[in-house]
Amino acid sequence: MTTIIGHHTTKFGELWQHSLFDLVKQSVFGALKDSGLGKDEVEAIFFGNMLGGVLENNLHGGAKLAEMLGLNIPIFRVESACASGGVAFNLGMNYITSSQAKTVLVVGAEKMTDYAADAVISGLSSATSGEEQEAGLTFPGLYAMLARYYLEKYSYTEKHLAYVSVKNHYHGLLNDNAHFQKKITVADVLASPYVADPLKVLDSSPISDGASALIITTDKSLIKKAKRAVSVLASEVATDSISLSARKNLDELLATRIAAEKAFREAKITPKDISIAEVHDCFSIAELLAMEDLGFWKKGTAGKHMETMSTMHGNGSDFIVNSSGGLKAAGHPVGATGIKQIGEVYLQLTEQAGKRQIHKPRYGLAHNVGGSGGTAVVTILGN
Amino acid sequence: MTTIIGHHTTKFGELWQHSLFDLVKQSVFGALKDSGLGKDEVEAIFFGNMLGGVLENNLHGGAKLAEMLGLNIPIFRVESACASGGVAFNLGMNYITSSQAKTVLVVGAEKMTDYAADAVISGLSSATSGEEQEAGLTFPGLYAMLARYYLEKYSYTEKHLAYVSVKNHYHGLLNDNAHFQKKITVADVLASPYVADPLKVLDSSPISDGASALIITTDKSLIKKAKRAVSVLASEVATDSISLSARKNLDELLATRIAAEKAFREAKITPKDISIAEVHDCFSIAELLAMEDLGFWKKGTAGKHMETMSTMHGNGSDFIVNSSGGLKAAGHPVGATGIKQIGEVYLQLTEQAGKRQIHKPRYGLAHNVGGSGGTAVVTILGN
Repeated sequence: MTTIIGHHTTKFGELWQHSLFDLVKQSVFGALKDSGLGKDEVEAIFFGNMLGGVLENNLHGGAKLAEMLGLNIPIFRVESACASGGVAFNLGMNYITSSQAKTVLVVGAEKMTDYAADAVISGLSSATSGEEQEAGLTFPGLYAMLARYYLEKYSYTEKHLAYVSVKNHYHGLLNDNAHFQKKITVADVLASPYVADPLKVLDSSPISDGASALIITTDKSLIKKAKRAVSVLASEVATDSISLSARKNLDELLATRIAAEKAFREAKITPKDISIAEVHDCFSIAELLAMEDLGFWKKGTAGKHMETMSTMHGNGSDFIVNSSGGLKAAGHPVGATGIKQIGEVYLQLTEQAGKRQIHKPRYGLAHNVGGSGGTAVVTILGN
Repeated sequence: MTTIIGHHTTKFGELWQHSLFDLVKQSVFGALKDSGLGKDEVEAIFFGNMLGGVLENNLHGGAKLAEMLGLNIPIFRVESACASGGVAFNLGMNYITSSQAKTVLVVGAEKMTDYAADAVISGLSSATSGEEQEAGLTFPGLYAMLARYYLEKYSYTEKHLAYVSVKNHYHGLLNDNAHFQKKITVADVLASPYVADPLKVLDSSPISDGASALIITTDKSLIKKAKRAVSVLASEVATDSISLSARKNLDELLATRIAAEKAFREAKITPKDISIAEVHDCFSIAELLAMEDLGFWKKGTAGKHMETMSTMHGNGSDFIVNSSGGLKAAGHPVGATGIKQIGEVYLQLTEQAGKRQIHKPRYGLAHNVGGSGGTAVVTILGN
C-alpha cells in the first residue's frame, strides 16, 4: 500500500521575500526532514504548478528541481489549473503503482502576490474557456452564477454561503500557517462588498504564495522507519467541460461526483466513514456544492446543514471540514493547494494538527478542483 | 506489452488558419480513425504542450479536451519545455503499466507562429534558468556555446555541423507534412547568416505550428484488431541541471545518456540493433551530441561520421536518422515534437513512411530533449 511518510507546508500568505523556487525548496527539504529521508532516496518527483509560465516566464520546473537537488531522476511538471497539486499527487501515486519507483516526492507551489492584480486575474482566467475569457468572465463571475442558481433552486439566502467562510476563518485562527488568522462573523461576511453578486469579498479565497510537499512510498523498510505513516486508500481524477455553458447541471460539479464515487469504491468505505475532509472552497458556494457532490450530504441540503455549523471544530461533531482553514482562510496558492489539503488530512490522521486536532480521526478525504469544475481530484487516506 | 495502434500528425508549418485546439482536434480524431477506435474507448489522455499559457493564456487543457470529446475521463496536461510531448508519452505508458487504464491517447501540440517573434523567443527562454534569462541568453546562444566547445575540443569545423541540416532537409523533401520541403547544400548552410556564432540560420530548427497524437493500449483484442501495431519496448526520462553553468561536461547531454542507457537495458537491445532514429536536432550541434550520448557513435566521432552522410536516406545504409526531416526540416512545434518523433518511428516500422520508407526496419528509437538538456526522453519501439 502506498503510504505518506513525510509532509511539509510552508506559511501561506503574501511572502514577498520568497521566490517560487525558494518556497519549493522550503517545502521539499521540510518534507525530506519530516520523513527522515535523504534526497538521494527520492526516485521521481511530480511538481504541480499553474502560473509559473504565465506570471514569471518560469517553465521547465523539472530541470530547475533537478538542479536544486543535484539529481538526474525523472521529474515531471503537471498543470491542471487549481487542481495542479492534486493531479501531481495522483500521477505520483500512479508512478509508484506502475513499479517505476518505490519512493516519490510530490510538491506543489505557487507565487502569486508579486504581480499586478490584473495579471493574476488574467492568468487565472487561462483556466476558463476561450469564449468565457472573451466575454470577460473571471472565476468570481462563474462561481457567482453557480451560487445564484443554487440559492434560487433550493431557496437559500446569502447567509447560507456566509456560514462556510465563518467556519473556515475560525479554523484558520487555529493554523499558524494560514494566510488569515482572523475570526469573522456572518454579519461581517454579509457586510463585505460584492465581488460578483451574490458572492462577496468574504465568500472568496485570497491570492496567496506558498508550497507544500509530501513523500509517498511503498518501501516497507521506509514505512517501518517512519515516525508517522498514513496509507493512501484511493486517488481519483475526473474531468468535465471547461465551459459552464456546456454542462447539463449547474447545481453539481460532475467531475467531483465521478471522482468521489470512484474513490469511495476503491477505498471500500462510504462518506459516513470520513472524520475529516479538506474540500475545495475557492468560493463559499464551492464548499456547499462539494459537500453534496462528494456524497456527504444530499443534493440541495448543504445550506440547511451549514445552519448547524456541525462541520466546525469544537462543535462536538465527529466530522470536520476544512480544518486547515480551507482555501478561504488558509490561502490558495493554486499549485500548492491540492498537496496542502492532503497534507492537512495526513497531519490530522497522525495527530499532529495541534490546536485544530480532532479526536482520533480514522479516515480523511481531500478534494481539489481545477477551474469551475473542469478537473476534480479526490484522495482518501486512512490506516 | 503496451502497443501503439494508431497515429496522426498534422501538417507542421505556419498554420495561421488553425488554432491550438484546432490542431489538437485534427491529430486526435486522425489517430482515433487510424486505430479504428471510437473516442469512448479512450480511458485517459496525456496532453503535452509548452507555451499555451505563456503565449495565449490557454491553460487547463485537460478540461478543454474533456469538452471537445464529451468525456469525463482522467486527462493530464504535462509540460517539460520542448520535451513536453515525450514526457506525456512516458506518463501515458506509466498509466497503462499501473493498470489504471488499458487504452490511452497521447497528444502533443503547439501554436507558435501567431505571435510576435520576441514573445515566442521570450516564451521559449522560460525553459532556461533565471540567471540565463537575466543574462539575455536564449537557446541559440546556449547551443552555440555547446557547439563552440565541441568544435574546438574535437577539431571540427562549421562544415561538420552543416552536414546535419543538409541531411535533414533532404529528408524533409520526402515528407509532405514537413515545414520545409527544400533541398539545401553545405554551401547554403555556411553562407546563411549567423544566429549565434558558430550556429547559423540553417543550423537552427524553425518556429512551427502542429500537433501529433498516438493511441497506446495493452488491450489484446484492440491490438489484434489493429491494422498496424508496434510494441513500445522502453520509455525512459532523465533530468539534468537547467543551467549549462551547473553541468560537469559540456560535450554531452547527461540526461540523454542516462535515459538512453536505461532504455536500452529495458528493451534488451543495443544501439547497433536500431535501424531508424528520430533525434532531437533543435540545432545541428544537438544531433551530433545526441548521436554520441545515445550510444550510436563514440564520444567525439560524430563529426567524422557525418562526413560520410551514412545516416541519410538513399545512401545504402541500414541506419537512418531523422527520416521525418527532424526538427530542422519537419519543423518544431515544441509540444508536438516528441509525439511526432515516436509517430515517425511507428510509421517506419509499419512500412507507412512512403517516399522516405527505409527497408524493413526492425527497431527504432525516438529522442526528445527539453531546454539545453535539462530533460531527456528516450523511447524504443520494435516488434
